[in-house]
Amino acid sequence: MSLKLVCTGCGDAYAIDDVVIRCRQCGEPLDVQGYASPSLRPGTWHGQTLIERYAEFLPFCDKYKSLSLREGFTSLLECPQLSSVAGCARVLLKNETVNPTWSFKDRGTLVAMCDAISRGYDHVGVVSTGNMAASVAAYGARAGVRVLVLVSEGMPAEKYVPIGVHGATVVRVSGDYAAIYERTVSTGVERIRFLNSDVPMRVEGSKTIAYEICEQTGYEPPQWVVVPTSSGGNLRGIVKGFDEMKSAGLISRMPRIVCVQAAGCAPIVEAWDRGEETVAPVPHPRTVAHAIENPNPPSGNAVLRRLRERNGLCVAVEDALILEAQQLMASCGVFGQPAAAVALAGVMVLADKEHFAPTDSVVCIATGSGLKSPGVVGPRLPGCGACDMSELDLVIGHWLDGRFPEGVAS
Amino acid sequence: MSLKLVCTGCGDAYAIDDVVIRCRQCGEPLDVQGYASPSLRPGTWHGQTLIERYAEFLPFCDKYKSLSLREGFTSLLECPQLSSVAGCARVLLKNETVNPTWSFKDRGTLVAMCDAISRGYDHVGVVSTGNMAASVAAYGARAGVRVLVLVSEGMPAEKYVPIGVHGATVVRVSGDYAAIYERTVSTGVERIRFLNSDVPMRVEGSKTIAYEICEQTGYEPPQWVVVPTSSGGNLRGIVKGFDEMKSAGLISRMPRIVCVQAAGCAPIVEAWDRGEETVAPVPHPRTVAHAIENPNPPSGNAVLRRLRERNGLCVAVEDALILEAQQLMASCGVFGQPAAAVALAGVMVLADKEHFAPTDSVVCIATGSGLKSPGVVGPRLPGCGACDMSELDLVIGHWLDGRFPEGVAS
Repeated sequence: MSLKLVCTGCGDAYAIDDVVIRCRQCGEPLDVQGYASPSLRPGTWHGQTLIERYAEFLPFCDKYKSLSLREGFTSLLECPQLSSVAGCARVLLKNETVNPTWSFKDRGTLVAMCDAISRGYDHVGVVSTGNMAASVAAYGARAGVRVLVLVSEGMPAEKYVPIGVHGATVVRVSGDYAAIYERTVSTGVERIRFLNSDVPMRVEGSKTIAYEICEQTGYEPPQWVVVPTSSGGNLRGIVKGFDEMKSAGLISRMPRIVCVQAAGCAPIVEAWDRGEETVAPVPHPRTVAHAIENPNPPSGNAVLRRLRERNGLCVAVEDALILEAQQLMASCGVFGQPAAAVALAGVMVLADKEHFAPTDSVVCIATGSGLKSPGVVGPRLPGCGACDMSELDLVIGHWLDGRFPEGVAS
Repeated sequence: MSLKLVCTGCGDAYAIDDVVIRCRQCGEPLDVQGYASPSLRPGTWHGQTLIERYAEFLPFCDKYKSLSLREGFTSLLECPQLSSVAGCARVLLKNETVNPTWSFKDRGTLVAMCDAISRGYDHVGVVSTGNMAASVAAYGARAGVRVLVLVSEGMPAEKYVPIGVHGATVVRVSGDYAAIYERTVSTGVERIRFLNSDVPMRVEGSKTIAYEICEQTGYEPPQWVVVPTSSGGNLRGIVKGFDEMKSAGLISRMPRIVCVQAAGCAPIVEAWDRGEETVAPVPHPRTVAHAIENPNPPSGNAVLRRLRERNGLCVAVEDALILEAQQLMASCGVFGQPAAAVALAGVMVLADKEHFAPTDSVVCIATGSGLKSPGVVGPRLPGCGACDMSELDLVIGHWLDGRFPEGVAS
């Protein structure tokens, strides 16, 4: 096996142990390429970690089993209530909210952390607004490495605790997310390894979402996989995972991949709609889906290329629809953060345009837990009433009859 | 097979389809008894729901597979960092924070919801301060039944969203948690089924924690299983699960079960220490571990009986130690709510008293996610600093050297 880091843009190749993060020629992100044709034996997930289960697809992780927090192996949840919304046979939620730090980021963090440690780093960093920071902080603590989290100065205080509790240092940097990110590509690479959103090893972790979907559907993947997209790293990983499953002969066709962004921060969708090959930064991003509010996605161009090569789609969704989708997901039992609901919102837009055949299956990637941003939910929640203990029987009776006494709730 | 509801106190038996919730003779909670000797084939968890995997131990659930949110099958996470704290060979966290609504409650909710629906109910209720309410709201939404959540009037607003988002009605009732609970045992049983903390079917769900520990340890259970305890229903379930594994011949010995409560609300521990058989209500409960702040636990007496019969232990832990344990868990990668950290805090107390043999294994039940109560964490978090983009390289350099420039963070 001779693995290489290969530029997703110009195809330039680097040694697998090069410290390079983005292509030195064209600046585009890199992929790990050159796996020997791997196999995957049907078997049990029980007792295996992600990096054991997919060892042949993640060969650089084999020494670090103890770092695992048992990420991945998330459910693919059939939601009959959503079929009519989508106008197709089946809608399934890939429920990434049950990962160890309650978002899909844990998959990539595990692989990128294994890589950083194997390179000898004992300091890692990350530029993140939430999910990724909590994930790197957790795995860094487990690995016994120091973690530096750079956030933009507007980060709300409540996002600090799930990062700080693991012992990570958080620094607010004045300047936007994209600019901070760019700085870390070159800063201090000898002493600190940044495990940012689109580093090759994080993409390797994300690809396991596709592997699992293949396994969970008996190697008959859905017609559509819909992905909330920010930096683009997760979508790249999912495309790569299906590619590798197909190369290995484990699936016979690729699903169509849909990139969904919030309309208030949709640089990839805008470039797609204009037929352009490169993403332009969004000057004033604004959406309820903060977890995907990246105005200048580092893997944006790579996403455009991947989707054009593979008959993909891009779609933007308004905040109101995101919040409606969040409540629809909750009506199926899954409370996702607004960013997670972006996928289902995208399905609703595509359904309106009759993109789906009646026999199609659609998988939505539900990226992170609603507990991450409990302050952001739609306006249509039922009332929260109050009563005295002496009124309790009466209130219960009224509620059973579908009404409430005056002044209680509706 | 002839299942019965059997009183945990006086042994009185009721038909399995009786609407009874607590014994009509002595008021004590009921257990499901009378399983035919079940078997458990080694096999795969992948593709199975909890109620499929343990179908022979949960025979009344077989028709309701579609209600599952893929609860359970949580990791049993080895934490080498904690062995020295406990002074024993191994400490493992049973990570219940990765359940569908991020607490162990989902196991019992699934089983109790199946039971309610099989009885023909389309209205369910729950008295809860948080975890259980969110769980019942989620499963109720999925099942298409209406959900009424009764909370005491002091519930903070941020706890409402994860319940309301699923469409449940929340009513604040003036009066304490225990009194509200008592009322629901008798109120409107023909039209609404309350799935409270210690109903028999919820206990049946909780017992699967023990089943999984048996499977995950190759049927060589740990010497100790340490359980944060509020109403007592979860501990009852865990004891029952090990009992049934032993009756089925799948394990040869029982672990010792430890009931841990927060010192500010420890009615079971206080009764235990006084050698009493019944629990007295705590007049002014007060602890950071709100999720286990039940001043009058309905299964308290049952817990005392079970632990006395089985060489168990009870221990109370102070808030400061709970928060220290929370950070220790986080240093292993798991951010639990304070109630979840109560188990590890109990281990620390027992370790000080040299309860553990050097070769012992200890399993802590990490009951719920830290995101449930992000405002409650210990004081020893690292600083959160700030800097200008122009200072970023300098700040990173200082951090790598183990210090910060003045005014940034420490």
